[in-house]
Amino acid sequence: MCSTVILLLLISSVLCDYWSQREKLLNDEDSLVMGSSIILSNNEIIVNNFLMKQKWEEFDNGFRNPGSFIPARHLFDTLSYIEQSDVFHFIQKVPKGALLHGHDTALASGDYLYNLTFSDNLYACVSNEKIQLRFLKEAVIGLDCVWKPIHLLRETVTDFDIRLKQQLTLIRENHREVYTDINVVWNYFSNIFLTVDPLICYKPIFIDYFYQVLTELYEDNVFYIEFRTTLPTVYDLDGNMYGPIEVAGLYKQIVEDFMLTHPEFLGAKLIYAPIRNVDEDTMQGYVDTVRALKANFPDFLAGFDLVGQEDLGQPLVKFVTQLQEIKKEVNLFFHAGETNWFGSSTDENLIDAVLLGTLRIGHGYAALKRPEILKIIKTYHIAVEICPISNQVLLLSDDMRNHPANYLIANDFPVIISNDDPSFWGTKGLSYDWYMAFMGMTSRRTDLRFLKQLAINSIKYSVYHDKNLAMKMWQQKWDNFINTLAKKIMVDEVTDNISLIKM
Amino acid sequence: MCSTVILLLLISSVLCDYWSQREKLLNDEDSLVMGSSIILSNNEIIVNNFLMKQKWEEFDNGFRNPGSFIPARHLFDTLSYIEQSDVFHFIQKVPKGALLHGHDTALASGDYLYNLTFSDNLYACVSNEKIQLRFLKEAVIGLDCVWKPIHLLRETVTDFDIRLKQQLTLIRENHREVYTDINVVWNYFSNIFLTVDPLICYKPIFIDYFYQVLTELYEDNVFYIEFRTTLPTVYDLDGNMYGPIEVAGLYKQIVEDFMLTHPEFLGAKLIYAPIRNVDEDTMQGYVDTVRALKANFPDFLAGFDLVGQEDLGQPLVKFVTQLQEIKKEVNLFFHAGETNWFGSSTDENLIDAVLLGTLRIGHGYAALKRPEILKIIKTYHIAVEICPISNQVLLLSDDMRNHPANYLIANDFPVIISNDDPSFWGTKGLSYDWYMAFMGMTSRRTDLRFLKQLAINSIKYSVYHDKNLAMKMWQQKWDNFINTLAKKIMVDEVTDNISLIKM
Ligand SMILES: [Zn+2]
Ligand SMILES: [Zn+2]
Repeated sequence: MCSTVILLLLISSVLCDYWSQREKLLNDEDSLVMGSSIILSNNEIIVNNFLMKQKWEEFDNGFRNPGSFIPARHLFDTLSYIEQSDVFHFIQKVPKGALLHGHDTALASGDYLYNLTFSDNLYACVSNEKIQLRFLKEAVIGLDCVWKPIHLLRETVTDFDIRLKQQLTLIRENHREVYTDINVVWNYFSNIFLTVDPLICYKPIFIDYFYQVLTELYEDNVFYIEFRTTLPTVYDLDGNMYGPIEVAGLYKQIVEDFMLTHPEFLGAKLIYAPIRNVDEDTMQGYVDTVRALKANFPDFLAGFDLVGQEDLGQPLVKFVTQLQEIKKEVNLFFHAGETNWFGSSTDENLIDAVLLGTLRIGHGYAALKRPEILKIIKTYHIAVEICPISNQVLLLSDDMRNHPANYLIANDFPVIISNDDPSFWGTKGLSYDWYMAFMGMTSRRTDLRFLKQLAINSIKYSVYHDKNLAMKMWQQKWDNFINTLAKKIMVDEVTDNISLIKM
Repeated sequence: MCSTVILLLLISSVLCDYWSQREKLLNDEDSLVMGSSIILSNNEIIVNNFLMKQKWEEFDNGFRNPGSFIPARHLFDTLSYIEQSDVFHFIQKVPKGALLHGHDTALASGDYLYNLTFSDNLYACVSNEKIQLRFLKEAVIGLDCVWKPIHLLRETVTDFDIRLKQQLTLIRENHREVYTDINVVWNYFSNIFLTVDPLICYKPIFIDYFYQVLTELYEDNVFYIEFRTTLPTVYDLDGNMYGPIEVAGLYKQIVEDFMLTHPEFLGAKLIYAPIRNVDEDTMQGYVDTVRALKANFPDFLAGFDLVGQEDLGQPLVKFVTQLQEIKKEVNLFFHAGETNWFGSSTDENLIDAVLLGTLRIGHGYAALKRPEILKIIKTYHIAVEICPISNQVLLLSDDMRNHPANYLIANDFPVIISNDDPSFWGTKGLSYDWYMAFMGMTSRRTDLRFLKQLAINSIKYSVYHDKNLAMKMWQQKWDNFINTLAKKIMVDEVTDNISLIKM
């Protein structure tokens, strides 16, 4: 409505006041941004002024010296700078609501993961230049592997720990030379899972690992999660193997245990997300697993997805029959359009995801190029799970300011921000990705209301069974955060004024 | 209309046929792309099939081996590959209509420019590690410069020619190390103009240079141009200096001379585009120059613009009074939003450009983030002059598939594709940028109709005085191109079949 008026005004611009038109146009744009409908309380205004001073300082520094602007650069060159940012520290403290897009075995911090390699009973072997890990009762000789206690290899193999660390992370100083294209980086990425899986699927570690995941998210002020899992086989030293249903049961138990000691933590739900690059028989097996999971864990199971590099995997369209079967059982949360290819089988996944009735879209990076998809996303409130750092590290985009989420946020699409696989690129929790979104994907003018909306969206687009309760609990945390900080800001200002007067 | 139907269908998806919905959704998207309203003739269909075979081969190769996909990589690493591309060769032959965004002293090919440094009477000096060039009658000693005939320096100064070449181009093998941020690359870029200006503003060379510009564009199947110029001072050996009006007169004469021997060339118009980083007094001087230009060259003068790095220059809003004066005299063609900064003085130039009634927008890179600007651009048919390679080389975007023009093209915004300053990055004509747009900024499904629309748009959004005539002349060239090629394709196919039968 407003914009029609503006347009009419434009025509008769000679008669109109340039400056009021200008103001109106800027305000009209502001009013479309995600979060713009929120009206801030007095305390929120105090906190917002505090935040925006920090945002503007960092933004304006970047404008003057573009090479210093963190969201424009690769994470591996800026990790330590992020951790010095005031805006980042602010975001760490924000009650962020839910994590809706993260993969179970890539969620704990890299340091924690590396420390696991000092566990008792961990054996290793070097085969084809690659280190393999496995928990064993005693040394065994495999087909192409002589398993030895890992400390023995540490002591004898040259650069063993350097090589081991490299197999647990994508971080490289010379990342531009190593990761020459998207398939290359995905190859490294997929190989990390292969190294990590036997390390963390050892039952005692498995339990400890996921407890650590919940702890780290909790410490980052996340209070509910919906995590994706392939439900990998878990093992123990006695030769027992735990299948999908048992593993889902383990997860449920860990979450319940965690909640006992963390009453403010709302819980977690599981999205069964096995690998996409399979044949129809395997997909039919997935259908069976979904049914069994649903029968056993009707509340704990959130839904279904498929994982693995979309470009090289099978497109959704190949499995329409099976996926329609699954849809009858559970909600769908498809990864779709995590690609730069336009008009390929990969970005057509967006078409099939919405036609299959996906509840949310993982990444949806390519949606910007598909106007009908954008329309459907907006009309049907299909949340887009944006993972800024993941998209950068996995070579979809470099500068956050060029990320399609800029458009989605500027037009108030149903966006949530998540972290995908922080373990493998040196971040943890949601704060790093929220920081990138706030500093790199929004206008200099976009403020606290956007962060608040991000948190609200994370609850709104979750499948938590009692959203009113969740919202109420989050609101309490938020109010507490705001009121405490507003008070501190006011005290600090008074103190500053007094010390000024004293001088 | 169609999409409303689709949405309703989605709701009742259980009842509907998945496959027909899918087809409809894909077709609906295709119907929104720039050029999609064009209906191809039989011969155009033959040519289109030929073109799409080449596009798909290149696209599918890229999909399989992403590191080989040219539009995803930096121009300086792919120049020789582009020149081997069948799609590129096809585009070279396409009658492309008009060039609407190019800067006079950066339009001739780099090879031609370098060869000018072997001209008689060219002198050089090395001052502060930089080579300066100037045409002189005889050696003179300047303040910090001892001018010597350039051949003497060539013979005595170490690596003189390597250094000279580097001052005439941005091309570097190690471009990633040299151009560390946008301000750094713009500094190199601006310095090239400083080196080049005294070389090509020597009157005899000036005339030869612009004639060469017209020749190269003509050979690239461009038949009309609207070029930006700062109207630099031209000089000769007798100490004469030619001011803006005289220089505009020179340009007009060169164009008329060129048209005498190239009757199919429609001509050229001049956009006066002095530098933006000035004070209000200088801006007032621009107003006077515009008036004088208009009085002297009412038909040759197309309009007004301001040039130079937007981030570091003055924003349009600073000169609203003077620009409104200029608007009374001529059309405006503002560079606006050539930036990655969102919510800065630079991307607010988009606001002022449209409020001032700009006829076209140079670059408009940041428009994607400003929904009201997008709406105005579409409603008022304000053409966006996209310069793909310029944006990459000057570090706004890396991968063409992430360029905001993808969105504009997918939604049929008024887009034209231009080349900005090809001289300084090793391309010439429009074909390189058209190639990037076709291969890197459109769907695999986007076809010949897009290229045809690009040409049509270049005429539609020009200010040529008789667009019907222009369109008619272009249509003749187009038909000729299509019919000749279609015939050749059919003959080749018959020949192929015969040779197949013979085998
Ligand atoms: Zn994911
Ligand atoms: Zn330009």
